[in-house]
Amino acid sequence: MAFKAYYLSPDGYLHRDLSEKEVREAFQSNEGLLWVDICETTMEDAEFLVRNFGFHRLAIEDCVSTLIHAPKIDDFGDHLFIIVHGINHKGESDIVETAELAIFIGPHFVVSNHNESLYSVDSIVNLVERDARPMKRGADFLAYVLIDSLIDNVLPTIDRMSDVADDIDEEVIRNPQQSTLEAILKLKRSVLRVHRVMAPQREVLNRLSRREFSIIEEEARIFYRDVYDHIVRIEDLGQSLRDQADNALATHLSSVANRQNETMRVLSTVATIFLPLALVAGIYGMNFEYMPELGWHWGYFAVLGFVGAVIVTVLSWFWARKWIAWSRRQVTRVRPFAVEPDKLVSYIDQMRKWSHL
Amino acid sequence: MAFKAYYLSPDGYLHRDLSEKEVREAFQSNEGLLWVDICETTMEDAEFLVRNFGFHRLAIEDCVSTLIHAPKIDDFGDHLFIIVHGINHKGESDIVETAELAIFIGPHFVVSNHNESLYSVDSIVNLVERDARPMKRGADFLAYVLIDSLIDNVLPTIDRMSDVADDIDEEVIRNPQQSTLEAILKLKRSVLRVHRVMAPQREVLNRLSRREFSIIEEEARIFYRDVYDHIVRIEDLGQSLRDQADNALATHLSSVANRQNETMRVLSTVATIFLPLALVAGIYGMNFEYMPELGWHWGYFAVLGFVGAVIVTVLSWFWARKWIAWSRRQVTRVRPFAVEPDKLVSYIDQMRKWSHL
Amino acid sequence: MAFKAYYLSPDGYLHRDLSEKEVREAFQSNEGLLWVDICETTMEDAEFLVRNFGFHRLAIEDCVSTLIHAPKIDDFGDHLFIIVHGINHKGESDIVETAELAIFIGPHFVVSNHNESLYSVDSIVNLVERDARPMKRGADFLAYVLIDSLIDNVLPTIDRMSDVADDIDEEVIRNPQQSTLEAILKLKRSVLRVHRVMAPQREVLNRLSRREFSIIEEEARIFYRDVYDHIVRIEDLGQSLRDQADNALATHLSSVANRQNETMRVLSTVATIFLPLALVAGIYGMNFEYMPELGWHWGYFAVLGFVGAVIVTVLSWFWARKWIAWSRRQVTRVRPFAVEPDKLVSYIDQMRKWSHL
Amino acid sequence: MAFKAYYLSPDGYLHRDLSEKEVREAFQSNEGLLWVDICETTMEDAEFLVRNFGFHRLAIEDCVSTLIHAPKIDDFGDHLFIIVHGINHKGESDIVETAELAIFIGPHFVVSNHNESLYSVDSIVNLVERDARPMKRGADFLAYVLIDSLIDNVLPTIDRMSDVADDIDEEVIRNPQQSTLEAILKLKRSVLRVHRVMAPQREVLNRLSRREFSIIEEEARIFYRDVYDHIVRIEDLGQSLRDQADNALATHLSSVANRQNETMRVLSTVATIFLPLALVAGIYGMNFEYMPELGWHWGYFAVLGFVGAVIVTVLSWFWARKWIAWSRRQVTRVRPFAVEPDKLVSYIDQMRKWSHL
Amino acid sequence: MAFKAYYLSPDGYLHRDLSEKEVREAFQSNEGLLWVDICETTMEDAEFLVRNFGFHRLAIEDCVSTLIHAPKIDDFGDHLFIIVHGINHKGESDIVETAELAIFIGPHFVVSNHNESLYSVDSIVNLVERDARPMKRGADFLAYVLIDSLIDNVLPTIDRMSDVADDIDEEVIRNPQQSTLEAILKLKRSVLRVHRVMAPQREVLNRLSRREFSIIEEEARIFYRDVYDHIVRIEDLGQSLRDQADNALATHLSSVANRQNETMRVLSTVATIFLPLALVAGIYGMNFEYMPELGWHWGYFAVLGFVGAVIVTVLSWFWARKWIAWSRRQVTRVRPFAVEPDKLVSYIDQMRKWSHL
Repeated sequence: MAFKAYYLSPDGYLHRDLSEKEVREAFQSNEGLLWVDICETTMEDAEFLVRNFGFHRLAIEDCVSTLIHAPKIDDFGDHLFIIVHGINHKGESDIVETAELAIFIGPHFVVSNHNESLYSVDSIVNLVERDARPMKRGADFLAYVLIDSLIDNVLPTIDRMSDVADDIDEEVIRNPQQSTLEAILKLKRSVLRVHRVMAPQREVLNRLSRREFSIIEEEARIFYRDVYDHIVRIEDLGQSLRDQADNALATHLSSVANRQNETMRVLSTVATIFLPLALVAGIYGMNFEYMPELGWHWGYFAVLGFVGAVIVTVLSWFWARKWIAWSRRQVTRVRPFAVEPDKLVSYIDQMRKWSHL
Repeated sequence: MAFKAYYLSPDGYLHRDLSEKEVREAFQSNEGLLWVDICETTMEDAEFLVRNFGFHRLAIEDCVSTLIHAPKIDDFGDHLFIIVHGINHKGESDIVETAELAIFIGPHFVVSNHNESLYSVDSIVNLVERDARPMKRGADFLAYVLIDSLIDNVLPTIDRMSDVADDIDEEVIRNPQQSTLEAILKLKRSVLRVHRVMAPQREVLNRLSRREFSIIEEEARIFYRDVYDHIVRIEDLGQSLRDQADNALATHLSSVANRQNETMRVLSTVATIFLPLALVAGIYGMNFEYMPELGWHWGYFAVLGFVGAVIVTVLSWFWARKWIAWSRRQVTRVRPFAVEPDKLVSYIDQMRKWSHL
Repeated sequence: MAFKAYYLSPDGYLHRDLSEKEVREAFQSNEGLLWVDICETTMEDAEFLVRNFGFHRLAIEDCVSTLIHAPKIDDFGDHLFIIVHGINHKGESDIVETAELAIFIGPHFVVSNHNESLYSVDSIVNLVERDARPMKRGADFLAYVLIDSLIDNVLPTIDRMSDVADDIDEEVIRNPQQSTLEAILKLKRSVLRVHRVMAPQREVLNRLSRREFSIIEEEARIFYRDVYDHIVRIEDLGQSLRDQADNALATHLSSVANRQNETMRVLSTVATIFLPLALVAGIYGMNFEYMPELGWHWGYFAVLGFVGAVIVTVLSWFWARKWIAWSRRQVTRVRPFAVEPDKLVSYIDQMRKWSHL
Repeated sequence: MAFKAYYLSPDGYLHRDLSEKEVREAFQSNEGLLWVDICETTMEDAEFLVRNFGFHRLAIEDCVSTLIHAPKIDDFGDHLFIIVHGINHKGESDIVETAELAIFIGPHFVVSNHNESLYSVDSIVNLVERDARPMKRGADFLAYVLIDSLIDNVLPTIDRMSDVADDIDEEVIRNPQQSTLEAILKLKRSVLRVHRVMAPQREVLNRLSRREFSIIEEEARIFYRDVYDHIVRIEDLGQSLRDQADNALATHLSSVANRQNETMRVLSTVATIFLPLALVAGIYGMNFEYMPELGWHWGYFAVLGFVGAVIVTVLSWFWARKWIAWSRRQVTRVRPFAVEPDKLVSYIDQMRKWSHL
Repeated sequence: MAFKAYYLSPDGYLHRDLSEKEVREAFQSNEGLLWVDICETTMEDAEFLVRNFGFHRLAIEDCVSTLIHAPKIDDFGDHLFIIVHGINHKGESDIVETAELAIFIGPHFVVSNHNESLYSVDSIVNLVERDARPMKRGADFLAYVLIDSLIDNVLPTIDRMSDVADDIDEEVIRNPQQSTLEAILKLKRSVLRVHRVMAPQREVLNRLSRREFSIIEEEARIFYRDVYDHIVRIEDLGQSLRDQADNALATHLSSVANRQNETMRVLSTVATIFLPLALVAGIYGMNFEYMPELGWHWGYFAVLGFVGAVIVTVLSWFWARKWIAWSRRQVTRVRPFAVEPDKLVSYIDQMRKWSHL
């Protein structure tokens, strides 16, 4: 049973490290603001929550269970139960993992549950320990601070994914390998996973920022709206990453096909040059009794010259048809979409319509 | 006619193994809770239902017919008719099969129909036999317990699919074969099938957990909401499996292309080395009378040396260009998306905005 | 002018083969139930409908025109005009074709139009001829019987498509050819076509089963709802077929790529073995004056032995690397998704939550 | 300033070729029906419209501008401004182009604008010139006739695209080339373009056929509904074309892959036959002093026989494995989806359910 | 602190370059129209806005932050806060970048913020400096002019992208390279980015043009509707570009496959011709003692003739089968979709239905 409890009494004094009895008293006083934060919620904690707060057992079960729960709001009349997801920054998998935060919000209390310790919650704990500021504007505001912090902590991971995507973009042109493909696919799955928790969260925050729940007061709603906007931004960035990954995939496949093409050209070139010449040599290696050329004094040198000439000619011809390239350097023509200022100005003039000026 | 009937009379006594007459009396008493469970519903059962309960013939037809029926709710005013799907754990096909459960819910009765015996219903029967607990909270709660048990039994199959997906992920890198492709495609079809029954079920449970049907009382609705949440979770897990299968497919195709590429390189390397050398040998095998080199004492050894030198040179060159690799081992660079704690802290500081603190 | 007209007078007597005058009288009596069925509607029939029923010319035009009309309901206040689609079982195209049925429903009449003779309508005609039963429950019920029969007749075609899909599944693994691809694509187009008429029909039936049209009475609505459910089932089956066809396509493409791979391997193997050996033979065929090995007694046999040894070694090596396979038999490992009963039971126990029992 | 103006006065007389003054008088009379049709609307026309009709400058700007405007309805209270699209039958691009028709509809006037001359408008002009019939039922009906004519003129183009699609279907099997691919892609883009103007138009016509605008009277609405149905049909036909083009694309790619496969097989066959035989010939061309076979009398013929035997054997073996085919003819097995009548009848019997007859 | 402030007093006089004090006075007068434009908003500007206008800190934060914010409207009761996006014409990336404009609109003031200098805002500044016209119709109209100018400035970039797409279309047929692929993918990402900012903007403008916000007066709404129409047009153009890019991608991949095919054919042709001939030469190079042909006088010339005949025959055969082409020119058959006028006329006649004329 590892919970931290803070109580800001109506006189503005912050009580720390409350015992179970103090928590119950604070809860029943219906004044001030009580915050209980439980990390790695156990069955014991569950009983504690039932005993003191009377929350619904299904909601508590969601806190205890280590399964993943989709973001949602349950309205229990006198309090809300919210599940939101952020990034599990301690996960060690190759694919981004999410972390859940379950929050009960009442008029005078906030109870937060999470199965891993979260940087975002820790940072709020630190703020509260210092000067209790996040608790001074009420339960809805404290819940907002927790959710906002969780959501904003997704951005560093998006940044990291963006760096990885740029690495891949470079590697896919320079030196595409099977491992590049795997990196692309892992990136895609990570982006999809972030998308999949953000999409329902958008709806959750949208509902919180509307007039739907009386516990969220007018003043706090605009802050929830701001979190909503951040989720929209995260989704946009995720979409861009997905496009980038899709393009990297297309480039990868094309690079692989190109290399195979190149291999085939080398083979064809070699065969086209040497098979006919081998025939020539083979012919003069035949043992017919009457082969006049064999007696010619310069016959051998004529053949040698012919062989040399053919090799040079065919290579030049293939070179001219761009079949074979000595170097791999490819100049990618940049086609910036930027429009020149003077062209823009002429557009602007044209757009200055007679209709409304 | 193989039905099991239980009647919990208002005095809390559980009557077991009711006869048709007792069933009719219990139904007409409009008190207590009657539960009739029919496995492998026959025409005889159908007549039984019409005779005693007066259900609509179309609904009964859905129970009797062995065709698949999509999940739905039909509201007959004084009772509901619900069809939900779980997994048919006894199916032996390579592709996941679903099992139907059709339930009539009235204020004082529940009639459940299924064409195969279901583990989930069996387990509820056991509970009822023991102490009748699932029947003590009314018809809506008993129906919930049946549906919840059916839906939760989907999770073991999802787990199994997840194991198969992990196996495939490994095989697709280690040793991709045509059979791997088939396994991927079967997994995908199974995931799609689960998705296709879960999606409409989400809607069914959503309606049951709203205030739409008076038979489902306020208190029970939150439990139906919980089943809804479970379906959402199953859908999320299914989506992840689908992403995994899609990635396995992409990796498979890329592996196959890579192997072909490798084959081509071996061929090209061999041809590039030996065709020119064969020409050299062919030239010195010509029968011209005047070929000065043939008389040179070390001519033969010069040619042998040249041949050896060319082979070594070309192989080294290809090796340097990474055209040929002696071993297949590929080190997949792991790029974890985890962000370092100190970087996170600096983000958090940056995010502590002047605007709201 | 080939119409069949039946009139069930209020006294329960069925009049057959009505003349135009009798039809008009029956229509104007506003009693009983008049059914006029027109096959291959001509301009003459159109005039007949305008003259006697006063239907809107646009609706009649839809009946006459042989173009395809999307499923729809037009509400003309005192009667409905409905277009629904079934399968044209007489079509001979490789791709499934649909057949239209246009129905006018009034309080005391049903007028059905179709451009081809339909098995489903014929079967209702037979029923009516026998004992008039489908007409005894009113116009809305007769219309339902017509529509239900049309929709149910889609199922045999779905079955046939399913058989074709299974054939393809087998062929695509055993012996994929260009014609297999064409069969897959035709199947997909057929499925899409069925989907494309069923999707709007779902909406049509949904509207008919709601309280939207007063001509459809409460009692009949549940039957329309049943047709709606059948359409949902057809759509589900169609979706499964589409998945199957998509998988067959993926398997086909992969099989083709595999065969090409195999071809390349044969080529590479042959070249890798014989090009170097040809060089050896070529070298000993050179005409240098001083080639000591040529004088060795066992030189020739040494070369023969070397050639044999190389062939055996390389083939064994490729064999060990699984590059070449003597037989094509591939054992597809079956991975059933079925979960063992005892594992299931442990899941069920785990799921028996403390929260609600 | 090239406008045509017609005025049908309340007494039923049609005035032709009105001057600007007459147009203004007709407009201000608020009686009868005035139709002004402007082709290639210029700034001068724009001033004319402002001066005499007082239309909003933004709407007029849409008429003058040669940019493409999406279909829409603007409701200006006493009149509507509608933009609809048809096909530009005079376009010469490889990709279908659309043509705009902008219509102002008031209670007693219709003003139509288009930047190209349109066959559909011309045909209505002809009808009006003849007997003024399209103008006799009011402004909403005249507008309907214009829109209906424009939309129906899309069908010939759909027909043409369908012919092209059938051509492609044949060519893609008979003789697929790069130009076939381009034809497929152009067809797809054309279909998409038609779809992209039809989709919003569906919404426009839907709104016109509802009770939304008082200018469109009850009686005319059903005609607008009919145009809506035509658009639905065009969309359906377009969808079928798109499926056909997608299939043609898949077949094309598969054909190309097949041909490459065939090329590889020829190569492999040739190499497999001749490389080993060349080795045999090379071995007997070696100059070892002691090669007993060389002295055998029938040695040479034995080698010749061996060579012939190998060629015949390998070719037969490849032939048996279907690696090589002498002719390209492929019998495509037709798998009609049609169900046999007797099978259908048995289905129908089975479907005649006990529940409702 | 780099802001430009204009104040149009109620007497129609334009005050330029207001100091902070004048701005505050103008704001508090609640008359006339105050416009403050801030480029590269700093924390100092933020304090300025809080001090003088009392805007919400979250809104100001959106102005200051250089992160990307999705288009949105926040309604603060007495003023609106709008974020819209245009093109950043100064961006130098290969992929189109967007630029944000954040606008506060009150009854008597407009405050615009942007982090880069924008051509569109500059042009409005110029107009205001000249004769204050854009300010004479109120705050809602000024805001419209700013947004309209921003959106219209997207068109030159769309034009530029269209030019690039046409270039690519040509290059992809003429000379497809890896760099072509990259250009296609960059174009696609640019189109997607434009789409991704335009889609939510459509919603923003839709809301502004409805009766939702009292600050936007009836008269101005139709202008906002016009901007909405422009966004729809930009989206349509973007969609066309996307289709074009997708087609270019398909053509590119097909071209690459075709070239590989061609390479393989050259190789196969060479091998098919020269490997058998080399065998012939090899056979006559064998050293058997008894080879009767070797003694024939014309034997050598017979072999030479045979070699020549084979080469000519095989090349002709391949040529006839279209395996090899001397030139690369491919005549793309144009299949215009235009329908001939007379065919159209017959359609039109057919469409002149009896039903409504």
